[in-house]
Amino acid sequence: MASTVEGGDTALLPEFPRGPLDAYRARASFSWKELALFTEGEDMLRFKKTIFSALENDPLFARSPGADLSLEKYRELNFLRCRRIFEYDFLSVEDMFKSPLKVLTLIQCLGMYDCSLAAKYLIHSLVFGSAIYSSGSERHLTYIQKIFRMEIFGCFALTELSHGSNTKAIRTTAHYDPATEEFIIHSPDFEAAKFWVGNMGKTATHAVVFAKLYVPGDQCHGLHPFIVQIRDPKTLLPMPGVMVGDIGKKLGQNGLDNGFAMFHKVRVPRQSLLNRMGDVTPEGTYVSSFKDVRQHFGATLGSLSWSRVSIVSLAILNLKLAVAIALRFSATRRQFGPTEEEEIPVLEYPMQQWRLLPYLAAIYALDHFSKSLFLDLMELQQGLASGDRSTRQAELGREIHALASASKPLASWTTQQGIQECREACGGHGYLAMNRLGVLRDDNDPNCTYEGDNNILLQQTSNYLLGLLAHQVQVALAAYKWLVCYLLRETYQKLNQEKRSGSSDFEARNKCQVSHGRPLALAFVELTVVQRFHEHVHQPCVPPSLRAVLGRLSALYALWSLSRHAALLYRGGYFSGEQAGEVLESAVLALCSQLKDDAVALVDVIAPPDFILDSPIGRADGELYKNLWGAILQESKALERASWWPEFSVNKPVIGSLKSKL
Amino acid sequence: MASTVEGGDTALLPEFPRGPLDAYRARASFSWKELALFTEGEDMLRFKKTIFSALENDPLFARSPGADLSLEKYRELNFLRCRRIFEYDFLSVEDMFKSPLKVLTLIQCLGMYDCSLAAKYLIHSLVFGSAIYSSGSERHLTYIQKIFRMEIFGCFALTELSHGSNTKAIRTTAHYDPATEEFIIHSPDFEAAKFWVGNMGKTATHAVVFAKLYVPGDQCHGLHPFIVQIRDPKTLLPMPGVMVGDIGKKLGQNGLDNGFAMFHKVRVPRQSLLNRMGDVTPEGTYVSSFKDVRQHFGATLGSLSWSRVSIVSLAILNLKLAVAIALRFSATRRQFGPTEEEEIPVLEYPMQQWRLLPYLAAIYALDHFSKSLFLDLMELQQGLASGDRSTRQAELGREIHALASASKPLASWTTQQGIQECREACGGHGYLAMNRLGVLRDDNDPNCTYEGDNNILLQQTSNYLLGLLAHQVQVALAAYKWLVCYLLRETYQKLNQEKRSGSSDFEARNKCQVSHGRPLALAFVELTVVQRFHEHVHQPCVPPSLRAVLGRLSALYALWSLSRHAALLYRGGYFSGEQAGEVLESAVLALCSQLKDDAVALVDVIAPPDFILDSPIGRADGELYKNLWGAILQESKALERASWWPEFSVNKPVIGSLKSKL
Repeated sequence: MASTVEGGDTALLPEFPRGPLDAYRARASFSWKELALFTEGEDMLRFKKTIFSALENDPLFARSPGADLSLEKYRELNFLRCRRIFEYDFLSVEDMFKSPLKVLTLIQCLGMYDCSLAAKYLIHSLVFGSAIYSSGSERHLTYIQKIFRMEIFGCFALTELSHGSNTKAIRTTAHYDPATEEFIIHSPDFEAAKFWVGNMGKTATHAVVFAKLYVPGDQCHGLHPFIVQIRDPKTLLPMPGVMVGDIGKKLGQNGLDNGFAMFHKVRVPRQSLLNRMGDVTPEGTYVSSFKDVRQHFGATLGSLSWSRVSIVSLAILNLKLAVAIALRFSATRRQFGPTEEEEIPVLEYPMQQWRLLPYLAAIYALDHFSKSLFLDLMELQQGLASGDRSTRQAELGREIHALASASKPLASWTTQQGIQECREACGGHGYLAMNRLGVLRDDNDPNCTYEGDNNILLQQTSNYLLGLLAHQVQVALAAYKWLVCYLLRETYQKLNQEKRSGSSDFEARNKCQVSHGRPLALAFVELTVVQRFHEHVHQPCVPPSLRAVLGRLSALYALWSLSRHAALLYRGGYFSGEQAGEVLESAVLALCSQLKDDAVALVDVIAPPDFILDSPIGRADGELYKNLWGAILQESKALERASWWPEFSVNKPVIGSLKSKL
Repeated sequence: MASTVEGGDTALLPEFPRGPLDAYRARASFSWKELALFTEGEDMLRFKKTIFSALENDPLFARSPGADLSLEKYRELNFLRCRRIFEYDFLSVEDMFKSPLKVLTLIQCLGMYDCSLAAKYLIHSLVFGSAIYSSGSERHLTYIQKIFRMEIFGCFALTELSHGSNTKAIRTTAHYDPATEEFIIHSPDFEAAKFWVGNMGKTATHAVVFAKLYVPGDQCHGLHPFIVQIRDPKTLLPMPGVMVGDIGKKLGQNGLDNGFAMFHKVRVPRQSLLNRMGDVTPEGTYVSSFKDVRQHFGATLGSLSWSRVSIVSLAILNLKLAVAIALRFSATRRQFGPTEEEEIPVLEYPMQQWRLLPYLAAIYALDHFSKSLFLDLMELQQGLASGDRSTRQAELGREIHALASASKPLASWTTQQGIQECREACGGHGYLAMNRLGVLRDDNDPNCTYEGDNNILLQQTSNYLLGLLAHQVQVALAAYKWLVCYLLRETYQKLNQEKRSGSSDFEARNKCQVSHGRPLALAFVELTVVQRFHEHVHQPCVPPSLRAVLGRLSALYALWSLSRHAALLYRGGYFSGEQAGEVLESAVLALCSQLKDDAVALVDVIAPPDFILDSPIGRADGELYKNLWGAILQESKALERASWWPEFSVNKPVIGSLKSKL
């Protein structure tokens, strides 16, 4: 069906229904359709519309507001929806290579519908799939075909019950037996059980299992990935020697089945080793394709960066939904006012603006950043694929790794704090499950943890920066740049001072991380996000009508982020006197006030259709109370008497009757 | 059964099982039993033990780890448990008057078991009960008896669908009809439906309903409370004219049934008016017992303060549980280390100490503060009861109200942030539902919202302080005191400046709140908490062996809280140069490091028994992995194949089969 950009219900960007949000929409300084086109491009908008419409028109994806799904039922539904995505085949493998950003868009669209669905799909086709693709060789290509036909279902088994971040301490073993040309995969005890593995709980038939590789003579060659079949695809029953199960309910993402597995001397063919990094000959000799460890390590970093960049994207989609809900609510919820008779929308209060608008700016800045980092990573990947092993390539890999390691914490924390602020800014109604802010918060939460705890990842970035300092790389000045330079110098000095006073390298780094390394890594990634977004909105190609609003978003994100470092700016002497701090604070508030009339239109650009957003208080028509009241009365049993009513009416307590038992 | 303070399993403070936490317990600088006795006193410890043991020995309170309770089932269970509390009658009404702090302790104990239970019990017996007691008169005493016999079940119906914070805009009406000597309770439309009312969803038979009182001639006398029967206690079916129902699933506290009600010209006898503030004669004349509005208002503030102080207590209990779980986890979880062979407990890392120990200090400081504020409030209440209407009494009322209004935000936010930090600090295992950090976070969340959004309550405190300034009250100097004075002066000047430049009072206050009023109110209440705790730990009666650890806790909470205002200290000129900020930061880190060996023992003081704490990773024996692994295998269906396995094994997708539908 052909659709046009403007006008009509079938348009690419249809008009919003008239209602209480009209007043703000009319006051916007720009056209939301123009900004949507500028930000996404027509092709991407069409791609999103295709996905969203397919889900909305398919009963399998019907929303059931307030439904009390059991864990079992939710997982079944999530699996069926994941299978259906293969039937739609929104993005063929060829399209992925043609337009890689669509991968991010597909994940964002599925995630906006339900994070569990995005996670299940992502783990099977991208995490499991690309682990095989990038770590395996030609003999493993058959698995890739089976993945995209869903003949097998995959998971990625790295972490163990007692080890997460410290992957070097992983204890699962893979001993090579030349007699049968097999590896023997074994978990020495339950603390070495693979644990937390997404898709492993109920569905995966195959796992990429990381284990320590031993060749005859008990020589260990470190962690290597193996493909291990854990369930029979015909029955979904465990394979012999594999004890596999579900780790149970989590704080969120309960459509996803996270699991555990213990291996009791499970034999797999020699070919199960994903052998890009190193291989074992039939006789049992270990051969590595890398000459030095650094190169090997650099190549591994690339694949870690993919996951981190995807998480940035997953985090932001949650923030988009939450901010859309909270701002539409704020533009229609009226409370207090200049006189007792007149109540004003809560968005008119400087407090509400200050609570929400910086997060709106953060969405635009971080979304741009995640796309640009994704493209950097593509470039890196293409270099690797074409065999480029130059120094520049290695440096690019390390820079991207440093940015990915710090932007994952920045995005997941900004989202975590932002959703909480949105929840509170919607008052009690924000605490009602049907309004979805809770699910968004719960589903975002693991973004702070997986692929490495945020605080630990920041250490990788500060270490990278310290390494740069040793090579005399310098950057220019401006508040943020000054801050990064200041913190870099301070961290370096503090580290040396600790070492001079007798601390080991391990101790010294730990002692410096809270006060120095952590703020350094955060300031650095914020500077990069700010810089890239600033450049983006000041390009000559930006339509003149959008320049003002984009400029304000960019300034608000930059100044708001900077203001959280005000104490350090004073401490290091970049700020002095009362005025500097005041000016920064007033600038943030002034920008909030300038953006408030644009807030609803800015939300219109990022919000998915109502069906996807799925929040009565956040619907595009702004009919806050009608939508909420309607949804509540539609819930099953809302007006019904409790089934256990005789427990009150008949079975009366005898007060104090059990006191003698105390 | 007699129990002794020391020794034996039946002791008041039994020994902990031996295990991996022993190393830290042995390194503690003090005896946890001595500190427990000093903090709580023997009588209170015994009271807690009685409650905890009763719950642990009663199968109705059995824990079902990882259970997937339906909303209906959870509510039934919570109601049955609430009824059982009446059978135990832990605290008779006479005991409450004798030892009022036991009320807080009872709520904390029930809340530690399950917040929904505490809330259900609290709303019925204390919120509903004390609303009748304090707003009604002798003719209403019969209700109090029925409450404590559970013949009726109560709720407190103030907020409406479209109005929460702005209670003056509540729209439910109560017109007096002299012909029948009845009030006609009426909801003009669904936006005026009572909404969010705890216990109203399924169980309440009676509600204290706030409505605008009209006497003949259509004269309005403002909001008044009425007792309205909403359901028949014999059937739990709604009364004629009342449309009452459940608002559905919330982010947390789902054992509690929050509800809504619309009244269609419901007639209640004249005597239903809770008439302490004002009454209506049979003929329809309004009579007030207060001479001036200010006095009236002051009396109302007292009852608001009760709820806020209770919320401080509810928040802290959640933080106690979360910090206990996270610190025991941190003392037993090992990750990385100085060499590849040796892994150290994560509590040894300065980062982990900095993340968690300030919250441990905050628990001790805020817990002390909440008790002391509760006692202040008791004093105020006794004055009111004895008819004291002096100026001092009114001033005390306003001061307590200001402290309660700011300590509720401080405690609920500290807890919100603290639980999130605990969740992240436990990594993936913190994200597993059975470890309980999610429930604690969810159950704490409404503390940020009910009884007034935190940001709005802070406004009441900053307004109070500005009022004091007008009366020339001054305070002495020291960093915090300076900060409060500085912010007070700045706020006052900024407010005047806004007014001089033409802003109305309403506008001016809104413009100053983010930058001035908010930090002022927070700094003020933090100063008070810090001061009270400092005095408490420096009393002559503190046992010498506890002085060091208590002094460190007090210093850590003070400096950590202060450090969050470092930018303002610089900006106002109290700090200058690099050193000031550095010293503050190093002092916090040094205190963290000094407290780490005491952390486990400090947790032992505040943690309830394992049954109550209910977290495999937080058990007192420190057997982190054994407990977690055991709990996972005990879950139903952990190892079972999914019931829907043929959906994978048999019903295979045809890839792209639905593509034509797009």
